[in-house]
Amino acid sequence: MKYLQNINSPDDLKKLNVDQLETVCSELRDFIIEQLSYNPGHFGSSLGTVELTVALHYLYNTPYDRLVWDVGHQAYSHKILTGRRDRFSTNRKLGGLSGFTNPSESEYDTFIAGHASTSISAALGMAVSASLRKENRNIVAIIGDGAMTGGLAYEGLNNVCSQPNNLLIILNDNNMSIDNNVGAIQDYLVKLTTSTKYNRFRNNIYQGFKRRNLISEKDKNLVLRFNNSVKSLITKEQNIFEGFNLRYFGPVDGHDLPSLIRILRNIKDMQGPKLLHIKTVKGKGYEPAEKSATVWHAPGLFNVETGERVVKDVKNQPPLYQDVFGHTLVEIAEKDEKIVGVTPAMPTGCSMTYMMDKFSDRSFDVGIAEAHAVTFSAGMAKEGLIPFCNIYSSFMQRAYDQIIHDVALQKLKVIMCLDRAGLVGADGPTHHGVFDLAYMRPIPNLVISAPYNEHELRNLMYTAAYGNDGPFVIRYPRGQGQLINWQNKPQILPIGKGRKLKDGDDIAVLSLGAIGNNAASAISEAEKLGISIAHYDMVFLKPIDEELLDNIAKKFKHIITVENGVIKGGLGSAVLEFLSEKQYSDSDVRVHRIGIADEFITHGSVSELQEIAEINPESILKKILQVYFDLTGIKLPSEETIVSL
Amino acid sequence: MKYLQNINSPDDLKKLNVDQLETVCSELRDFIIEQLSYNPGHFGSSLGTVELTVALHYLYNTPYDRLVWDVGHQAYSHKILTGRRDRFSTNRKLGGLSGFTNPSESEYDTFIAGHASTSISAALGMAVSASLRKENRNIVAIIGDGAMTGGLAYEGLNNVCSQPNNLLIILNDNNMSIDNNVGAIQDYLVKLTTSTKYNRFRNNIYQGFKRRNLISEKDKNLVLRFNNSVKSLITKEQNIFEGFNLRYFGPVDGHDLPSLIRILRNIKDMQGPKLLHIKTVKGKGYEPAEKSATVWHAPGLFNVETGERVVKDVKNQPPLYQDVFGHTLVEIAEKDEKIVGVTPAMPTGCSMTYMMDKFSDRSFDVGIAEAHAVTFSAGMAKEGLIPFCNIYSSFMQRAYDQIIHDVALQKLKVIMCLDRAGLVGADGPTHHGVFDLAYMRPIPNLVISAPYNEHELRNLMYTAAYGNDGPFVIRYPRGQGQLINWQNKPQILPIGKGRKLKDGDDIAVLSLGAIGNNAASAISEAEKLGISIAHYDMVFLKPIDEELLDNIAKKFKHIITVENGVIKGGLGSAVLEFLSEKQYSDSDVRVHRIGIADEFITHGSVSELQEIAEINPESILKKILQVYFDLTGIKLPSEETIVSL
Repeated sequence: MKYLQNINSPDDLKKLNVDQLETVCSELRDFIIEQLSYNPGHFGSSLGTVELTVALHYLYNTPYDRLVWDVGHQAYSHKILTGRRDRFSTNRKLGGLSGFTNPSESEYDTFIAGHASTSISAALGMAVSASLRKENRNIVAIIGDGAMTGGLAYEGLNNVCSQPNNLLIILNDNNMSIDNNVGAIQDYLVKLTTSTKYNRFRNNIYQGFKRRNLISEKDKNLVLRFNNSVKSLITKEQNIFEGFNLRYFGPVDGHDLPSLIRILRNIKDMQGPKLLHIKTVKGKGYEPAEKSATVWHAPGLFNVETGERVVKDVKNQPPLYQDVFGHTLVEIAEKDEKIVGVTPAMPTGCSMTYMMDKFSDRSFDVGIAEAHAVTFSAGMAKEGLIPFCNIYSSFMQRAYDQIIHDVALQKLKVIMCLDRAGLVGADGPTHHGVFDLAYMRPIPNLVISAPYNEHELRNLMYTAAYGNDGPFVIRYPRGQGQLINWQNKPQILPIGKGRKLKDGDDIAVLSLGAIGNNAASAISEAEKLGISIAHYDMVFLKPIDEELLDNIAKKFKHIITVENGVIKGGLGSAVLEFLSEKQYSDSDVRVHRIGIADEFITHGSVSELQEIAEINPESILKKILQVYFDLTGIKLPSEETIVSL
Repeated sequence: MKYLQNINSPDDLKKLNVDQLETVCSELRDFIIEQLSYNPGHFGSSLGTVELTVALHYLYNTPYDRLVWDVGHQAYSHKILTGRRDRFSTNRKLGGLSGFTNPSESEYDTFIAGHASTSISAALGMAVSASLRKENRNIVAIIGDGAMTGGLAYEGLNNVCSQPNNLLIILNDNNMSIDNNVGAIQDYLVKLTTSTKYNRFRNNIYQGFKRRNLISEKDKNLVLRFNNSVKSLITKEQNIFEGFNLRYFGPVDGHDLPSLIRILRNIKDMQGPKLLHIKTVKGKGYEPAEKSATVWHAPGLFNVETGERVVKDVKNQPPLYQDVFGHTLVEIAEKDEKIVGVTPAMPTGCSMTYMMDKFSDRSFDVGIAEAHAVTFSAGMAKEGLIPFCNIYSSFMQRAYDQIIHDVALQKLKVIMCLDRAGLVGADGPTHHGVFDLAYMRPIPNLVISAPYNEHELRNLMYTAAYGNDGPFVIRYPRGQGQLINWQNKPQILPIGKGRKLKDGDDIAVLSLGAIGNNAASAISEAEKLGISIAHYDMVFLKPIDEELLDNIAKKFKHIITVENGVIKGGLGSAVLEFLSEKQYSDSDVRVHRIGIADEFITHGSVSELQEIAEINPESILKKILQVYFDLTGIKLPSEETIVSL
């Protein structure tokens, strides 16, 4: 590294000339590739924004000027250039850098961005603030990687022109979100940039001006603006962004650093809202990634030289929950033409790709558009189709009103599958799917369930389709299940019925979903110490199994509830509410709730985070021992002896 | 009424000729005006869609063809023409017609639509279903009245072209939502329809074709399509909708019935997604309403002859909560330049108009765009401004992820004021603000409060601005407060502290917010019967006053909680969770929770609905008597004697 090792802030960047900056780009790229090869992260997006990041920090007075990155995983170069190079090896690790932008990590990070499409709205807020306070501050929103399909981006765009502001929106157009970008906006962008007539014409104009030595600042602007309006005439394309009263510039090759710097310098101080459209390649500069952008969105470990990804040997391993979902969906869809699949921009992540391969006309990737995904599903359900709508738990927060207003109120049979429920690990607090149980439970007419293992996931999918007549929620975690032989013959489960996993006498443990396996480990350990514990898999949060709860409350003085979600409002609260309604008094039941305390949980590995949140087997065992001590006065081994289960 | 009285279904409409249909329009208008004069409802929007509705039911084969109304209050004519004329006098009343579309009311209503911007997504779902099932069904989404500013509409539009479907979107463009429409889209629509050059040119083309007798079906389409592309050339406007790969037709005068029928007939069977842009006037045909569309959105009672609205004498009356908010906001903003106001399309409804009049540069009506409103506020808060973001409680469901991801996670000082919290009355289940307490409570870092009366609302607004450093929620009901002298000298309240309203010995009643006044009435009645009741106003749901709860739990064996929200997950649950954490067993304290049961509540007057939901004073009194009986064995007057408080 010739330059990069000495760049500790954008000031160091500003001392270099353009040639040297190109070397910096190359060094940045090498650095990111090497780092990510042994510490996995978001690969493709970060390589796509190298030149843009260098150009922005070179020209803008950051952090006084505000860069607002949409979806922070575009921002690895930004992190490396703003004093976090040496800590970059801690990226996404417990105690290390966040994989997204985070103001508490650096003053150069202006806004947290784990979910897409927020940058225009946030940046507009900052621009309005600068204008009210008469601060001569530039605000730049960098949106891309599919975020333009989100309704929030549009709501932001629609408001950008309505107040005086000095905002530049950079559309980082790489034709991709995580999977391929979809929808009209994407078609539109492709058309806008591929019209040969336009490109020929554009080139001629530029050359013409160049020949005549029209290079004053004023004239440059003139060229750009003229070029802009000419484009509309020539291509007979409508420029959507100009429809929003934005001044549109581009498209520009986002990997041509000198051009980027030139155009950014030209438009930097123009008044009013502007949009610069740059074209980038996801994974730019690393051939395997350029060829297969979806795989290299977040490729895991890989060999830098060969480009081979380190793929875990999955033989004799339990499958991923997402694959159980994906294969089971195909299995149901093969038998029933009414089955359709919907997912907002995460077909690979939720394994709906299997359905898309087999039944392309009945699978819908709607782009980053969670609200639409749910209401669109509701429309199909209204006509008698059976949609499985798969959305990561934390993204489902985007469709909360649609669940209430379009699905639950109309009792429509939309099957909402929430992948990545519970603590998800390295993606951190923006992505933990920990609120779903609490925010779903108050909604009338919903059935809410969580599978203990792969068999139960399959059973619940069949039950949602054929054992129930209204909306149905199935939430399950990221990652692997428990069973190597996961392909059971599915059963229709009775709605709202839990099941006893094992008998016991001293304490009852009630768990919901796959976190029940942590409870099972703890219970097995506790039994070795002589405590007799009954374990119930509730299966359904709603309707909750009142008959079962009634029997448990009659038999046990102590109930421990275990859930992989926020403790306020979830399973534990449901149990408390039931007991209160039934006015249990003499039997004197005490409930001990294990769940995620009232705080945002950081990033790290899933097991590290489960430990922090005290929902790991060891924490559950500790709670069991403590309850047993309260119950009997007998102190089983001191807490220190619990090391690891 | 010459024709209308005999129209009991669209079949009856289809027997008439165009002249007769024009009479039907006129009769419909008279009928709606007369009905709404004594049974208030959404006036302006319903008068704007008379001709469109007649044309649609005349041409389309409803209910086999699907009409999907966006925001159901456009659909009064639709209801009247589809067999509900004689029941229309029950509109919005308990047991009567819903003020919005409702499939359980009529097979002609295809989708519930109380919240805006849902129609395109829902209709696309129906269109895809028809196409998969090879049904030759037309689907028409009618979107308008500001709904086009919502991100969901855009997400829908972006997906319309991505699958084969036979969808017609009608953009009912009346320049208004409830207040004036805002943002780029609105500017855009105005430009699109006011270009004189375009209109002159357009007219010439039409005349030219007419003269040459080009009237075959094929040629009509040709004219329309030619006209469409010519428009783009002539106006040099970009047509946003064509950017979405929709075929665009219009703009057409939405009150010219023959034209409407003609163009709809022409485009009805064209393949692929289409958009017809019609221009309508809110309140069309009733002069006072045409002149002042915002006032006549929902004008209340009025005199048909004079156009005078029956305005209640508000002298010596407590003010509306919304006005206390509006005036207090101005009061704070006068002293502090950092204060800004944000509301998505409801400045009149939440009385932010006072702020807009006085500080137009610091007040932002962002259009129907709740998610943007919150993230935009977060952007301003990040820069040190203090935004009061006012959104009706049920609409805040649209910004759930933004609260978690953009506000709470970053601990940004956004003050979220939730007007219309609790049961709202005639607007019914789509508009009841009953979920907020339950969906907000699990979110870390939020302060959540609800004022008992006007003084407390003012205190909480000052406390949010100057007594706290992070996000703050204040939820308060629709309608009048309690105090004629509402202008107290505001105090900064201690965060998370409740207050004792009155002392007592037998039972403790804990209430949150203005519903506490219902509790106070019940308590006062109960005390007359000799029961000694302590009443606590919790003020804060979060952080909840644990010290106070501790003292209450030590003193009382029976606690009754009262809240105007869903019972699952709200105040009552918070109290149960606290007692469980502190290991108060049920033999120590019994909690009786009063709140809204797990079902959607219908429409009706607020007092009728509070009775149904059993949160009215009488129901609270019954609960008190029942608890007292459990406690003492003494049966105070039989329930029959409780008539009305």
